Amino acid sequence: MTLSVAEIGAFTGTVLLGRDIPAAARIDRSGYVPVGAPEALVRAADVEDVRRAVRVAARAGWSVVVRGAGSGLAGGAAAGAGTLVLDVSGLQRILEISPADELAVVEAGVSGAVLDAEAARHGLRYTPDPASVAISTIGGNIATNAGGLRCVKYGVTGDAVLGLSVVLADGRLVHTGRRTVKGVAGLDITRLFTGSEGTLGVIVAATVRLQPIPIDTVTVAAWFDDVEQAAAAAAGVLAARVRPAMLELLDESSLREARDLLGLPASAAGAFLVAQTDGYGARAEAEVVADTFRHWTSRLEVGTDPAAADALLAVRRAALPALERHGRTLIEDIAVPRSRIAEAVRRITEIATRHSTRIHTFGHAGDGNLHPIIVVPPDDPAAYTRATTAADEIFATALALGGTITGEHGIGILKRAWLSRELGPDALDVQLSLRRALDPTGLFNPGKALGQ
Amino acid sequence: MTLSVAEIGAFTGTVLLGRDIPAAARIDRSGYVPVGAPEALVRAADVEDVRRAVRVAARAGWSVVVRGAGSGLAGGAAAGAGTLVLDVSGLQRILEISPADELAVVEAGVSGAVLDAEAARHGLRYTPDPASVAISTIGGNIATNAGGLRCVKYGVTGDAVLGLSVVLADGRLVHTGRRTVKGVAGLDITRLFTGSEGTLGVIVAATVRLQPIPIDTVTVAAWFDDVEQAAAAAAGVLAARVRPAMLELLDESSLREARDLLGLPASAAGAFLVAQTDGYGARAEAEVVADTFRHWTSRLEVGTDPAAADALLAVRRAALPALERHGRTLIEDIAVPRSRIAEAVRRITEIATRHSTRIHTFGHAGDGNLHPIIVVPPDDPAAYTRATTAADEIFATALALGGTITGEHGIGILKRAWLSRELGPDALDVQLSLRRALDPTGLFNPGKALGQ
Repeated sequence: MTLSVAEIGAFTGTVLLGRDIPAAARIDRSGYVPVGAPEALVRAADVEDVRRAVRVAARAGWSVVVRGAGSGLAGGAAAGAGTLVLDVSGLQRILEISPADELAVVEAGVSGAVLDAEAARHGLRYTPDPASVAISTIGGNIATNAGGLRCVKYGVTGDAVLGLSVVLADGRLVHTGRRTVKGVAGLDITRLFTGSEGTLGVIVAATVRLQPIPIDTVTVAAWFDDVEQAAAAAAGVLAARVRPAMLELLDESSLREARDLLGLPASAAGAFLVAQTDGYGARAEAEVVADTFRHWTSRLEVGTDPAAADALLAVRRAALPALERHGRTLIEDIAVPRSRIAEAVRRITEIATRHSTRIHTFGHAGDGNLHPIIVVPPDDPAAYTRATTAADEIFATALALGGTITGEHGIGILKRAWLSRELGPDALDVQLSLRRALDPTGLFNPGKALGQ
Repeated sequence: MTLSVAEIGAFTGTVLLGRDIPAAARIDRSGYVPVGAPEALVRAADVEDVRRAVRVAARAGWSVVVRGAGSGLAGGAAAGAGTLVLDVSGLQRILEISPADELAVVEAGVSGAVLDAEAARHGLRYTPDPASVAISTIGGNIATNAGGLRCVKYGVTGDAVLGLSVVLADGRLVHTGRRTVKGVAGLDITRLFTGSEGTLGVIVAATVRLQPIPIDTVTVAAWFDDVEQAAAAAAGVLAARVRPAMLELLDESSLREARDLLGLPASAAGAFLVAQTDGYGARAEAEVVADTFRHWTSRLEVGTDPAAADALLAVRRAALPALERHGRTLIEDIAVPRSRIAEAVRRITEIATRHSTRIHTFGHAGDGNLHPIIVVPPDDPAAYTRATTAADEIFATALALGGTITGEHGIGILKRAWLSRELGPDALDVQLSLRRALDPTGLFNPGKALGQ
């Protein structure tokens, strides 16, 4: 099958077919390479292009793989044979910013960083801050219900989404949600589309909440002898009724690598925590954080201006780039109840040892969301096999500790086999029935997340 | 149709049939009286009773109307002819409180106040606080995604729900969600059931978040010349980057009535605001609140201890009871973008005048969620007709101002006619297709909310 000249000519945006499609359009940042190549790539110029693309794909018998910036980490945007790649990153208009109502209406291709910069002109910010915020799109963030560093206080992407515009499998454009902070008319289908990983419809625009830029921000960093002490200190902060805006953990090897990348001397610490407090209580909360940390360590630093904060956060931000120097990285993403963080890190270290695999763990201690990074040397198939075995054991550990196989990256294609183990057959069946109701022919992202 | 002796005998809880069913079991607090009487009432003793009730209702050809405390305000639990009333208020176990993970697992019949009191023993609280918190059940709060006074900072009921146990139309028991604060494995069906008003399944248990009791709380009350000034002051507080835990508004007549009930002298004010700040920044934020209020009024009071806070909040809490002295009250529940609050109140006053109807408005200024209370004298059918006409105009006003017909009470049966006007035909169609996927025969709450 292919598209007719008339079908192609109807698009305002670009249509590429077969070999004209760049290789980059079929992969994301997961490292997963799909089998075969997509049939068509539509770079939508507007919402009507999205509707056209959905209709022609259905007509041609292709499935639709939506992509934004392609920064996903689970293979959700991977597109192989029999697919039409629908690139919505060109939908880049900020349609409205309402300072009075603290909201924005944006098209799906707008990046969080761009919206945040615009909001800042009104003293506001867009709180979702996935590590990819500078490059990823808000549409993609919503499709994966992306997390980030500030979730412990400000919630995940879905907590900032008030409403959506979505193109359905039959080409209809529907609007969900509202502009008010509260509202209970009908089912919460905004939340249903949020995190659906391209399996229910194409998100083309969103109404999102903005929040005031905090009046003050304080950063506290501390070095501990081991992860148990760091986890206890993190728990101590929360038990002291502090609501940190950020509470990040690095294990020993992540810390060593990050400091090495930054040209800092080795710290001889077994774990590292960096906390941020903000708002009118920022300084009072930071004092409590520091006092709490001091029960476990004497090595801490406090930063009260942006430069000092950046310096203390630099180690956290350097962790992943530092590890990427050493080979391919499998970026895992489990979450466990917060009380099990230390146990999770310890078990991950045991898994690494057992499988002669290099695993470094850092993550969001305030949420129990850990990123074990498995580093695989280039051109070592045996090491890759050991890594995937280790990854499976990490997922099993997450479930055994009462957690989840994905805190913020999504199922995509990489964790498909684990979805039913987490959800159980009945809950998965409910989800599949909802998917069938909205996409009876399985047009959207079959084989990814819950798509069949 | 009726139930066999064997069917009745299988229940652990109580089963009543026909005339044995008390009249109170077929109504909620909306004032709506259904046509006919229910066929059966099952007071479930456990989850297995719920599953049995769903199955026998399907077998008998009755629909299932779930009820908790019957404190709903939209007629969602009203049960007439052809229904089996499934009372889950007997499911009252608190199954777990985990201080370390700041969560609780409760059965659906537990009241928010009871959970809150238990959580307080661990320094924690259950933040959702609908006005009915002392009498309503958490299951009912989740079914309606109930709001409350603290939503402006702590969110609505749904924001506190991590996971659910739900009995489906085919009698299966499914578990949704998780125990971790983050998690993106599969669709967010926890949120789909939350606010579904008994149309998708029977909520029998929930895993809910707890939060630390704030270290400090300050209350600021102020009296203004008119609603415009009060609304401007409320907006000023939010623009000053304060995140109040509560920001409540009373219009002139609500204030007068509330003070009268409390035996206080008339205040000669045109509007009243009461704000609460909490956490480590409570005092600093309260100072900003007071300074902001002073731009519009010199009449304000600050309370820093619980007794003073209670005194200042008493007027807000007295508003509805004060109005209920004068006749039947139609408790409306619109929400508008916060920037439109003053305009909404002004238009509601105009509607009252136009229809010779008594309407008093108070509500959650921080959320734009207003409760216009229409007071109808007893035994005055003409006044009742005028009241319902006025209510319709209030709903139309909410939509015209970019708002919603229900901020926190739900659609139930009273706002059915307005649901499609708010959602539009395509979004409603999506919702109906989801409902059909989970409840193909329309077993649960037909004729309520989106149930057909």
